[in-house]
Amino acid sequence: MPEVVVMRLPLYLRALNLIEDRVDIINSQELGDTLQLTPAQIRKDLSYFGKFGKQGRGYNVRTLIQELRRILGLDREWKMVLVGVGRLGRAILAYGRFPRSGFVAVAAFDADSGMVGKKVAGVPVLHVSDLPAVVAREGISIGIVSVPPSHAQQVIDDLVHAGVKAILNYAPVAAKVPPGVKLRDIDPVVAAQSMTYYLKQDSAVEEFSPY
Amino acid sequence: MPEVVVMRLPLYLRALNLIEDRVDIINSQELGDTLQLTPAQIRKDLSYFGKFGKQGRGYNVRTLIQELRRILGLDREWKMVLVGVGRLGRAILAYGRFPRSGFVAVAAFDADSGMVGKKVAGVPVLHVSDLPAVVAREGISIGIVSVPPSHAQQVIDDLVHAGVKAILNYAPVAAKVPPGVKLRDIDPVVAAQSMTYYLKQDSAVEEFSPY
Repeated sequence: MPEVVVMRLPLYLRALNLIEDRVDIINSQELGDTLQLTPAQIRKDLSYFGKFGKQGRGYNVRTLIQELRRILGLDREWKMVLVGVGRLGRAILAYGRFPRSGFVAVAAFDADSGMVGKKVAGVPVLHVSDLPAVVAREGISIGIVSVPPSHAQQVIDDLVHAGVKAILNYAPVAAKVPPGVKLRDIDPVVAAQSMTYYLKQDSAVEEFSPY
Repeated sequence: MPEVVVMRLPLYLRALNLIEDRVDIINSQELGDTLQLTPAQIRKDLSYFGKFGKQGRGYNVRTLIQELRRILGLDREWKMVLVGVGRLGRAILAYGRFPRSGFVAVAAFDADSGMVGKKVAGVPVLHVSDLPAVVAREGISIGIVSVPPSHAQQVIDDLVHAGVKAILNYAPVAAKVPPGVKLRDIDPVVAAQSMTYYLKQDSAVEEFSPY
């Protein structure tokens, strides 16, 4: 299963969840229109997992949602820990879409003893020295990293050493993880910087256009 | 210039910024190690923009940073507007890395008249009906969308109609923009959901292993 396919499946699920209340059946053309993918791509992606829908009759939206949730391992709850309870970390803990999507932060960690013992959005803040014990005891697979860049790799190493297998990294660094551990970066500044290249082109055209 | 190259350049810049204070010269092997890219990939990406560095002598870090900033249009400030001043919108306005990276929110908009007239992180909140006038008057190119999914496409259409050319979309929808407008999605839940597929495989292996 190519990783690029695995990356697209949550987008399918998100699109289907948005229409679930008003659409019963969707074909690959309609789903492709929604996601700006070709119908052939949609059919090919879904064919990795077996047969969904019948030729010419489209997919049952509810069934496809259930199958995608099962395939992605989303038919259960996932416990997470968060490291770095600064302003960004507190905003992440307060972000309602994680718990609503089955991702539940059970503990947060910080090196600042002034934060330890508090609760943020109902999540207890512990000292980072307690990280390995909590990850092991609670069987945590997912860690969110929201520490400053200078500490990010060390925190990620600590999470991996403690047994975490998936890391959502908000620190603006290219962190390294060993094989078998997944890492996704969330960096809105990088996303913005990948658009200004085109904005710059636009203004250059305006600037130099003889018309 | 392939978009995939443009997407990587901010990562180069981010990596170089992190080492700028302690490294003068970096070669493509070292930069590749940092970014988990091959040296050949790095050389090929940078070759799109002309000749940086000398064969066998590596890149001057400060010069490369300057060139990347110029190429990406980051040698100037970019004004942004944000639409949707809920909890997420307020967290984005308070996110210090945007202004520190030259992305300055000059106004925020909300449909809730209770928010209008307030300031969030120093940014004035205006009514959404004022959006077109402000975008035109201030020459805004970048819009951040942090409204609920049900309103996201309409807000994006409004931004595009007002003249915005680049959209950073935090709403969990596959939004559509016309050609010539760039869109980047920030969706940490989708990122997390693209990792559980592998976590599930791990636990399945454990569960069924005869050893």
